[in-house]
Amino acid sequence: MTYCVGLLLKAGMVLLSDTRTNAGLDNIATYRKLFTFEVPGERAIAIMTAGNLSVTQTTIARLEEEMSDDPDVDHSRSILKAPTMLRVAELVGETLSQVRGEIAGRMAGAEAIASASMIVAGQRRGGGMRMFLVYQEGNFIEATEDTPFLQIGEHKYGKPILDRVVTPDLGLAEARKAVLLSMDSTLRSNLSVGMPLDMAIIAADDLRISERARIEAGDARFAAMSEAWSQALRDAFRRIEI
Amino acid sequence: MTYCVGLLLKAGMVLLSDTRTNAGLDNIATYRKLFTFEVPGERAIAIMTAGNLSVTQTTIARLEEEMSDDPDVDHSRSILKAPTMLRVAELVGETLSQVRGEIAGRMAGAEAIASASMIVAGQRRGGGMRMFLVYQEGNFIEATEDTPFLQIGEHKYGKPILDRVVTPDLGLAEARKAVLLSMDSTLRSNLSVGMPLDMAIIAADDLRISERARIEAGDARFAAMSEAWSQALRDAFRRIEI
Repeated sequence: MTYCVGLLLKAGMVLLSDTRTNAGLDNIATYRKLFTFEVPGERAIAIMTAGNLSVTQTTIARLEEEMSDDPDVDHSRSILKAPTMLRVAELVGETLSQVRGEIAGRMAGAEAIASASMIVAGQRRGGGMRMFLVYQEGNFIEATEDTPFLQIGEHKYGKPILDRVVTPDLGLAEARKAVLLSMDSTLRSNLSVGMPLDMAIIAADDLRISERARIEAGDARFAAMSEAWSQALRDAFRRIEI
Repeated sequence: MTYCVGLLLKAGMVLLSDTRTNAGLDNIATYRKLFTFEVPGERAIAIMTAGNLSVTQTTIARLEEEMSDDPDVDHSRSILKAPTMLRVAELVGETLSQVRGEIAGRMAGAEAIASASMIVAGQRRGGGMRMFLVYQEGNFIEATEDTPFLQIGEHKYGKPILDRVVTPDLGLAEARKAVLLSMDSTLRSNLSVGMPLDMAIIAADDLRISERARIEAGDARFAAMSEAWSQALRDAFRRIEI
């Protein structure tokens, strides 16, 4: 399974994904699900993926090929050249829908399901920050002030904390904490979501990937935060009266 | 949808269910999903239901008929006369499986799905407290010291808090708080789980329904607890360092 969460705040965009991929319970591997692309000073884009790995990898590979400087490739659909973030979301959606259709067609009758979804976040010079959840049919929804976060994959365990603390005014340090705690609840409850974690931050108007981090399984700070949060929840639980 | 949760603790068993039933999003009603049966001093049993309402209502109706004093009915399968709680779980499972099979057969080809599950908890004189999750095929699993709670329906939103605070040593007052907070997280995130709530407590060796309560939508204490918990979570969130 997978858990990816993205926050769209006034201060910037914060994205966090796990890296666990499994084909059944007995075939578990680590794959990156967070991809970043930038032309510093001009645009920064982050994409997170959930679902069938052959679909998401092929989609990302095609998008990367169109961004490459390979002279044999048609770059007219490069997301680094798209005029707006809306167009970026459309290009990702069209590619995802096409790849998914090809693979689903070949898998017809097989038990496995070629489903996938993506979160696309970014900003280009002259435009605002935008964050989209792109479905496998290529259509998408967008994060707004009312709903300033998007999730894909195993989203339920980590949603209660987001519902309570995430508002568009949250600062980036608080936002980092919010997504890590949301992931922590998910890791505890669903073994098919697993460390290491990948995080990316695109600060408002920074027009570059402001921060990238991988948090490894033994990370002492993450473990301390997780333990402190559990302790705080248990303390709060003891104090609540009914 | 539905959310039902039951805790099996040394001090007793605590059960909580919502009451919302929906056929689509535009047809919402309130139905009891928590049923209690007792022969005070001899045995106490509570059953919670999730899934297709025609399946769960018919199952409960047949179980009630077998418990009735109607002379025209065969009482040999009454769960109030079963020698052990294990046999009670088997009887509920057999009835559920049969009803479900009959209805699923008639619904073959229709879009709706006749799935259902139940939590069966109780104690008889001379036996220990037992709590079972009964599947629609009639098989079941049992709560244990390692996993002292069972959930049916929309279980994910309310699981993180249970994972953190529920141990077999939890007292009944704390247990009541734990299931209410677990329900609170679920109510916030899934509109198809709704008030009022039904709660039942069977204290250890009490051999009766020790407490029954209905918590209505406007309940001031529940609202205060919910607000205090949100505030405590936000405070804890602010204090956590990463």
